[in-house]
Amino acid sequence: MEYIFSDRVGNLKPSAIREIFKYAADPEVISLSAGNPSPDAFPSKEIAEISADVLKKNPISCLQYSITEGYAPLRARLKTYMKSKYGIGTENDDLLITSGAQQIMDLASKSLINEGDVVICEAPSFIGSLNTFRSYNCRLRGVEIESDGINISELEKALSEEKNVKFIYTIPNFQNPSGVTMSLEKRKAVYELAKRYGVLIIEDNPYGDLRYVGDDIPAIKSFDTEGIVIYAGSFSKTIAPGLRVAFTVAPAPVFQKMVVCKQGQDVHTNIWAQIMVDEFMARYDYEQHLEKLRRIYSKKAAYMTHLLDQNLPPQVSYNKIEGGLFTVCTLPDYVDMPQFCRELINRKVCVVPGNAFLADENEVCHNFRINFSTPTDDQLRRGIEILGALAKEVVR
Amino acid sequence: MEYIFSDRVGNLKPSAIREIFKYAADPEVISLSAGNPSPDAFPSKEIAEISADVLKKNPISCLQYSITEGYAPLRARLKTYMKSKYGIGTENDDLLITSGAQQIMDLASKSLINEGDVVICEAPSFIGSLNTFRSYNCRLRGVEIESDGINISELEKALSEEKNVKFIYTIPNFQNPSGVTMSLEKRKAVYELAKRYGVLIIEDNPYGDLRYVGDDIPAIKSFDTEGIVIYAGSFSKTIAPGLRVAFTVAPAPVFQKMVVCKQGQDVHTNIWAQIMVDEFMARYDYEQHLEKLRRIYSKKAAYMTHLLDQNLPPQVSYNKIEGGLFTVCTLPDYVDMPQFCRELINRKVCVVPGNAFLADENEVCHNFRINFSTPTDDQLRRGIEILGALAKEVVR
Repeated sequence: MEYIFSDRVGNLKPSAIREIFKYAADPEVISLSAGNPSPDAFPSKEIAEISADVLKKNPISCLQYSITEGYAPLRARLKTYMKSKYGIGTENDDLLITSGAQQIMDLASKSLINEGDVVICEAPSFIGSLNTFRSYNCRLRGVEIESDGINISELEKALSEEKNVKFIYTIPNFQNPSGVTMSLEKRKAVYELAKRYGVLIIEDNPYGDLRYVGDDIPAIKSFDTEGIVIYAGSFSKTIAPGLRVAFTVAPAPVFQKMVVCKQGQDVHTNIWAQIMVDEFMARYDYEQHLEKLRRIYSKKAAYMTHLLDQNLPPQVSYNKIEGGLFTVCTLPDYVDMPQFCRELINRKVCVVPGNAFLADENEVCHNFRINFSTPTDDQLRRGIEILGALAKEVVR
Repeated sequence: MEYIFSDRVGNLKPSAIREIFKYAADPEVISLSAGNPSPDAFPSKEIAEISADVLKKNPISCLQYSITEGYAPLRARLKTYMKSKYGIGTENDDLLITSGAQQIMDLASKSLINEGDVVICEAPSFIGSLNTFRSYNCRLRGVEIESDGINISELEKALSEEKNVKFIYTIPNFQNPSGVTMSLEKRKAVYELAKRYGVLIIEDNPYGDLRYVGDDIPAIKSFDTEGIVIYAGSFSKTIAPGLRVAFTVAPAPVFQKMVVCKQGQDVHTNIWAQIMVDEFMARYDYEQHLEKLRRIYSKKAAYMTHLLDQNLPPQVSYNKIEGGLFTVCTLPDYVDMPQFCRELINRKVCVVPGNAFLADENEVCHNFRINFSTPTDDQLRRGIEILGALAKEVVR
């Protein structure tokens, strides 16, 4: 049998990160490559309690078919929560529960992208989202990210040059991979540009609740009076990723198309998991839980910062960690970054080469991403020591 | 803001069944329209036990990120089970865990269908699958279903007439909506035709384990030496649909594309649910569980048959129930079926008009689907009495 695949997947490759994860799975390798939340951060005891209680009192609610839009009590709770805490959601928006935020990217792409359309993304940006956009045969246009977020004049240039831009994809808080947070001024500028050019924005915010220093900055969605922002929230980093529960607050016409696409994709999100999230927020102090996560991760972030300062030669820079789970280290231009990452693997340390996160993976790139949430403190120390030693060998 | 949607979803409507479910949600309405398994059939106690145990002993396994292909122990278990029980799976196949069988339809469509390709389906067929195929801009060609399955000479005609047929979609056991089972001879003929014309087959088998009379017939996939059959199995009817756990046994090259598409769609299926299925099969006697389901449903099927025989006038026929959850009733040609269904809703009984299941929903159609797994015995009795009374008013 000769298999003839669709044009959209013919050239689609498994993500480069997956290849790296193969090495990372070796127990002898110290992985700084994952994006997994720390198991310490999971409310395991609380989930076990809620699950036991619900499966005893009302098992059918966890086991029967449910509706595509999501578990009604959770939708209502999140609408209220997002409005009161973040000023997100208007009467022109609606809220859809999804199977992880990855599904939001797929449903939005499926609803919006025709072959040859353009998606503007930050460069670098989250590889999982970029691959989903690619799978709908769009062209990605990367716009460089600066220390305070996307380069606004480059964004305007991209909007004026490109036809058929469908949306701008941004991760404004503690961006993956860069760790960068977009300033308030830039958020307003991105919104105004999107409005002027009549394009949508996907605002992906998995890490917003994980700020360790400084003050929260309002979401772009909170300015959205025109119905141009599709906001993606997730419980993967704040409760547990295995649940696969996320949500989008989107303009009602976009929401409606996403619901129809989701119906054909998985009918509805696992209902036990939706109930777990709803009951967790109902029975426990969610703000206190977030505070606990910030304590766990800010300690890890501080330790990582300390290790990087101690071990990296001055020629290797890294982005200051204000929140989230990652930072990016940048090597001098004369160092071959892919070769550096390969040599690190030989020395049993695994990081993610920065070109994995570019709109064009073949572009020359000098940085790599490191994660501090998954490794133990001991692994972090040994990993950064090995990384620092290699860096000292290659810089001049 | 003017929203411009992709061509693929511009004309996509919410499924006609959803409209009907609005009426069915009215507690005064007796719904014969659902496809929900009976809550009596859920192993609620066992799931509660397993969940409590796993969330106590190894909560992180239920909460952390997992791999796209599926929970490794469940994949291994299902490979062995499908091979030993049904002769399904060769060294050229692989097995992917999905978020319901609906996702298999989406992943296969995304991997295979280019705009303008043709999908051959039984007419009538499951609306959820047809809508997913439509969402990838293919054209559906329906081939009539007879009392022993798809019309083989019409299928051959379709294959010889249509260019760019990507796959044949079939539900060989207790087909939704018709309840019809395909004979062994026809299964072999469908396989040979697909092989001759170089097209794939999607064999969707959610109801295969729910046979109440007669002997099991081998799956088309069990003849598959050439790697042309994508088999879809599901736990929605045999354990619980809220879990959203299904699996496909597919030729390895197709499996690989589906994995890449799934990675971009939901990363992986809810891991707690995968563990529930794996542990349920490990700790309990799964064959005895299936036997229990068949006892519950065959009793309901027998009661439904009794009620139809007692209440329907001879001019209204129905398909004999051998398994599954549905049957189809056919009105005489001179009765306006949509009008009949609307009048039933006025009398507080809800069924699904047969045209919802056609490749072309506007085709004239004289049948409707009724379900016997969801209503209580009392609801069934009252529902079929009302249906029978109306039928007697309209026949001549």
